[in-house]
Amino acid sequence: MDLALVTSGGDAPGMNAAIRAFVRQGLLGQHRIWGILRGLEGIVRAVRQELKTESVADIIMTGGTMLHTSRFVDFHNAATQETAVKQLREWGLDGLAVLGGNGSLRAAHAMSQAGFPVVGIPSSIDNDIYGTDDSIGYDTAVNNITQSIDKMRDTASSHERIFVVEVMGNRSGALAIGSGLAAGAEAIVVPERPVNAELIADRLRTTHARGKKHSFIVVAEGAARAERLANELSMMTGFEVRWVVLGHTQRGGPPSAKDRWLGSLLGSAAISFLENGSHGLMVGVRSDAVRGISLEEVARNEKPPQYSWLELAEQLAL
Amino acid sequence: MDLALVTSGGDAPGMNAAIRAFVRQGLLGQHRIWGILRGLEGIVRAVRQELKTESVADIIMTGGTMLHTSRFVDFHNAATQETAVKQLREWGLDGLAVLGGNGSLRAAHAMSQAGFPVVGIPSSIDNDIYGTDDSIGYDTAVNNITQSIDKMRDTASSHERIFVVEVMGNRSGALAIGSGLAAGAEAIVVPERPVNAELIADRLRTTHARGKKHSFIVVAEGAARAERLANELSMMTGFEVRWVVLGHTQRGGPPSAKDRWLGSLLGSAAISFLENGSHGLMVGVRSDAVRGISLEEVARNEKPPQYSWLELAEQLAL
Amino acid sequence: MDLALVTSGGDAPGMNAAIRAFVRQGLLGQHRIWGILRGLEGIVRAVRQELKTESVADIIMTGGTMLHTSRFVDFHNAATQETAVKQLREWGLDGLAVLGGNGSLRAAHAMSQAGFPVVGIPSSIDNDIYGTDDSIGYDTAVNNITQSIDKMRDTASSHERIFVVEVMGNRSGALAIGSGLAAGAEAIVVPERPVNAELIADRLRTTHARGKKHSFIVVAEGAARAERLANELSMMTGFEVRWVVLGHTQRGGPPSAKDRWLGSLLGSAAISFLENGSHGLMVGVRSDAVRGISLEEVARNEKPPQYSWLELAEQLAL
Amino acid sequence: MDLALVTSGGDAPGMNAAIRAFVRQGLLGQHRIWGILRGLEGIVRAVRQELKTESVADIIMTGGTMLHTSRFVDFHNAATQETAVKQLREWGLDGLAVLGGNGSLRAAHAMSQAGFPVVGIPSSIDNDIYGTDDSIGYDTAVNNITQSIDKMRDTASSHERIFVVEVMGNRSGALAIGSGLAAGAEAIVVPERPVNAELIADRLRTTHARGKKHSFIVVAEGAARAERLANELSMMTGFEVRWVVLGHTQRGGPPSAKDRWLGSLLGSAAISFLENGSHGLMVGVRSDAVRGISLEEVARNEKPPQYSWLELAEQLAL
Repeated sequence: MDLALVTSGGDAPGMNAAIRAFVRQGLLGQHRIWGILRGLEGIVRAVRQELKTESVADIIMTGGTMLHTSRFVDFHNAATQETAVKQLREWGLDGLAVLGGNGSLRAAHAMSQAGFPVVGIPSSIDNDIYGTDDSIGYDTAVNNITQSIDKMRDTASSHERIFVVEVMGNRSGALAIGSGLAAGAEAIVVPERPVNAELIADRLRTTHARGKKHSFIVVAEGAARAERLANELSMMTGFEVRWVVLGHTQRGGPPSAKDRWLGSLLGSAAISFLENGSHGLMVGVRSDAVRGISLEEVARNEKPPQYSWLELAEQLAL
Repeated sequence: MDLALVTSGGDAPGMNAAIRAFVRQGLLGQHRIWGILRGLEGIVRAVRQELKTESVADIIMTGGTMLHTSRFVDFHNAATQETAVKQLREWGLDGLAVLGGNGSLRAAHAMSQAGFPVVGIPSSIDNDIYGTDDSIGYDTAVNNITQSIDKMRDTASSHERIFVVEVMGNRSGALAIGSGLAAGAEAIVVPERPVNAELIADRLRTTHARGKKHSFIVVAEGAARAERLANELSMMTGFEVRWVVLGHTQRGGPPSAKDRWLGSLLGSAAISFLENGSHGLMVGVRSDAVRGISLEEVARNEKPPQYSWLELAEQLAL
Repeated sequence: MDLALVTSGGDAPGMNAAIRAFVRQGLLGQHRIWGILRGLEGIVRAVRQELKTESVADIIMTGGTMLHTSRFVDFHNAATQETAVKQLREWGLDGLAVLGGNGSLRAAHAMSQAGFPVVGIPSSIDNDIYGTDDSIGYDTAVNNITQSIDKMRDTASSHERIFVVEVMGNRSGALAIGSGLAAGAEAIVVPERPVNAELIADRLRTTHARGKKHSFIVVAEGAARAERLANELSMMTGFEVRWVVLGHTQRGGPPSAKDRWLGSLLGSAAISFLENGSHGLMVGVRSDAVRGISLEEVARNEKPPQYSWLELAEQLAL
Repeated sequence: MDLALVTSGGDAPGMNAAIRAFVRQGLLGQHRIWGILRGLEGIVRAVRQELKTESVADIIMTGGTMLHTSRFVDFHNAATQETAVKQLREWGLDGLAVLGGNGSLRAAHAMSQAGFPVVGIPSSIDNDIYGTDDSIGYDTAVNNITQSIDKMRDTASSHERIFVVEVMGNRSGALAIGSGLAAGAEAIVVPERPVNAELIADRLRTTHARGKKHSFIVVAEGAARAERLANELSMMTGFEVRWVVLGHTQRGGPPSAKDRWLGSLLGSAAISFLENGSHGLMVGVRSDAVRGISLEEVARNEKPPQYSWLELAEQLAL
């Protein structure tokens, strides 16, 4: 078979492990493997290259995606989707794997509905994809954030300061909750729930009265801006409150062991599914075992973050 | 209630997160919390200290265990177990949490059978504990190993060398498999299966013929000694084969985000179980949700490593 | 003798190594050692504690300062300086070591001129202190920044993006130059020279025309705001330009080997100088050898950053 | 001019930064630049490739050497040296830069004496090269070791154990001293001085009596084997003493900021020297400024490690 893969949307550490697995497993199965460049836009623009075993050497430990990626909003458009499927057929491809987050998986679903064999691979540092315990990139990103807060703790402790740390997550609080629990944050603010600055201020007063001299509040970018929240808390409590926006340092760097496993498992599974004529599916994991789930279900749902972890984190930090 | 906890056997990163969660959740429940020092031996020697909220400040990001630990082989002895339970009662304790690996959990089971309320918390970098997806410390250790191999890859590539890397795992191949898959190792050798040096030599000849100039073989210490295997492979193939024993760098350092979550969830859950009169159990996780499983079942079984990952790793590296 | 030390101004990784060396070397010399808490303000507020060998155990590898610190602008005031010297005498101290940057060393000079035996220890991530090759904290900070840019490079490369990275340095470009050279930045913007956005835009057009798809511009916070410069460059060139402010992650975390050496050498040397009646001096290094330089000279001068490195960095990135 | 460079002997992190600087500075000077592959052996075997600006893209942050390297003992032979110089002339080269340690620089000296224009660039994690404050690779290696000991400290502390850590350094104690001082080691054993196990045992008894529960002894591989020393100390003191050989993890990984500067400065300076007809020299640094020193002087001398740091380290750890 002639099989292709494309990485789409925000890059996620572990995508390269998935590319490597897809390519090598595909070649073992005697297929011809193609990489489409620069995201879904690359389909429409017809940019692809053939991938061999050597093409994916020494990439398992690198962040980003060797195929490059882009955010291609135009793909919501039915006409664009048609053009894409037409191009895939023109190339004579028998199947396509799409690595990306919710937006990209909806695009995958659209191409699948248009009759082309597509398998999705959940790749998003937001970990908000329905039907899988984990998506590629989350574990690395959450470790990056946790390590950054660990570093700030030295300064926070030396100056006895409060820090508001803004992390990625426009619509999802998963990164904020995961890193907040890991870093021992006093409060976590997520887009899924209303911000309650008064409650956080109370909490800071309580811990301060108890003698605690430094505190961290982790806030997802979609919930509030760190700068504004820091100023509000400072005015409410009279304490000195600093803020930091972690930005693009969160999603880069060598993938964690887990994201390399996940990429390897799912990239390899995508080949098996396409080989067996199973498509219109996303490959995901449950308890470390691979499973397929229909792209339709994935497209219709979103995975909520672990609210119970949020409560646990705040409880334990008091 | 008066509740105590003890860390036993090899230290595992994330133990401190579990101690912190146990202490703070316990204090929130109005209990009195005690830490027993230096492992199970500390029960027999009656060494404990009361733990307050401040006692566990700033430990969530540290490896090792603040309560210290030891390997106490004498605990297999029924008389010693009796002495221990007697001491726990003398202290007026209402419950005990034991953090450790299979050996320590068997000790926990013994004390439970002797009538004392005990909850186990799976803590072992070997991840070979039955009844839980993960045990505390594995994720950090496997990331430590993966990062070490990443570093060696620069030298391996510069000198076009083959490396045999010996990792921890006396009876379990989980660390070797997890790090071997993550690091892109050409071969993985585990204690659960016979070593086949001839097969590895063949594999090296094949990849070398293909032009691959550096290779890694990950071997669990319980399966073979790196030095000996390296010499064998060198004689068989005529290639230059170097070896490294990673040793105690594997289990230290700041715990990964995952091990901090796991410690926090399980330490907190242990309090809930003891509060509710549920004991004779180990708290574990399945798909990130906490569950109890009887210590008897845990003591009777062992979790095998992921053999399918071993095969996948070797397939993808060829 | 009764000797004290104080950390002042921004915390710098390696300060704890210097504290450890000062305390232990002092105790070896049979002196009594005191730590003044929370910076120069701690002198005026008379907050100190005696330090023993155990007080400084296990701090050599930690960032921040165990004595806490603060920015105490009031110290410019002659009356405050008098109060401070009076307090030092009231305590019966025979000497004081001040760890800090240019502001703190000017305060040290003032106390020295008022007749109190003071030795300065250059501690500033800005490395802008006259009379020493290096100041404590610079090496760690510049490595922190370099590692952050390394991480962003994965995303920059995947998305073929230009990044403007804002680093610390209100009046000094040393961090920007050091990290810019190490990270292979295309342009470096420092407070000591006028910003020339047009020149940077030209450079981006040139490298882009050559096929280079991702670029980094490192800018010191005192020279320009990353956000504004990114917008300007984007308008000038039509390229997508992102920006990141690294913030407080730069100065934290475990000190580098070099900052631990520097702290150890200088903390120890400060004792020797005070013992020998040499004061009114700062201890610095030249070619890894310790040397004293008068605080007056230090107070009157400032060390310029390495402009030749800036040019080299930009040349090599083209 | 036609200029070439070669990396020789053990790989050192920062070599790639030097290669990048040599290539790009050379191209800016309108020269043609060649990379000789696999060390000095590559000259004799006549393996070279032309290097362009793009050839050295994205290598500044990688360890190892993109030109590969080897240990080529045969080069001591006068006939081999002649063959090499003949080959360099046959290629029509006008100059050569040799990156390596003392052995490679002696080879560079030999070729220079045979009349070929050669410049040496000190590259060795051992930092034992005469005439320069630093050689490329030392700073990264010493930080790698320090971080490894930091990790072991968690286990050492949890189990209250003594560790003997064997580091690289066959004839030089520089790595042992630098990492021992940075890690707070109780004793440091170097090849340049006789091992005194009795003295170390005394020291362990003293610190143990004082209550110190974990200790580190750093030993250079050329001075003693960790395993043997650990056993000796264990027998002498009765304490449990563990040992670790850090091996090839020491020299790999992303170079530190300092090694990237050093590589950039020296690679660039080598071009300037060759352009100006200055050769038979090594480019080194003194107080961060580049200077040339005759290869003859370099070949005749060796730089001793910092013995005063050794004494300081041991004093401060007591």
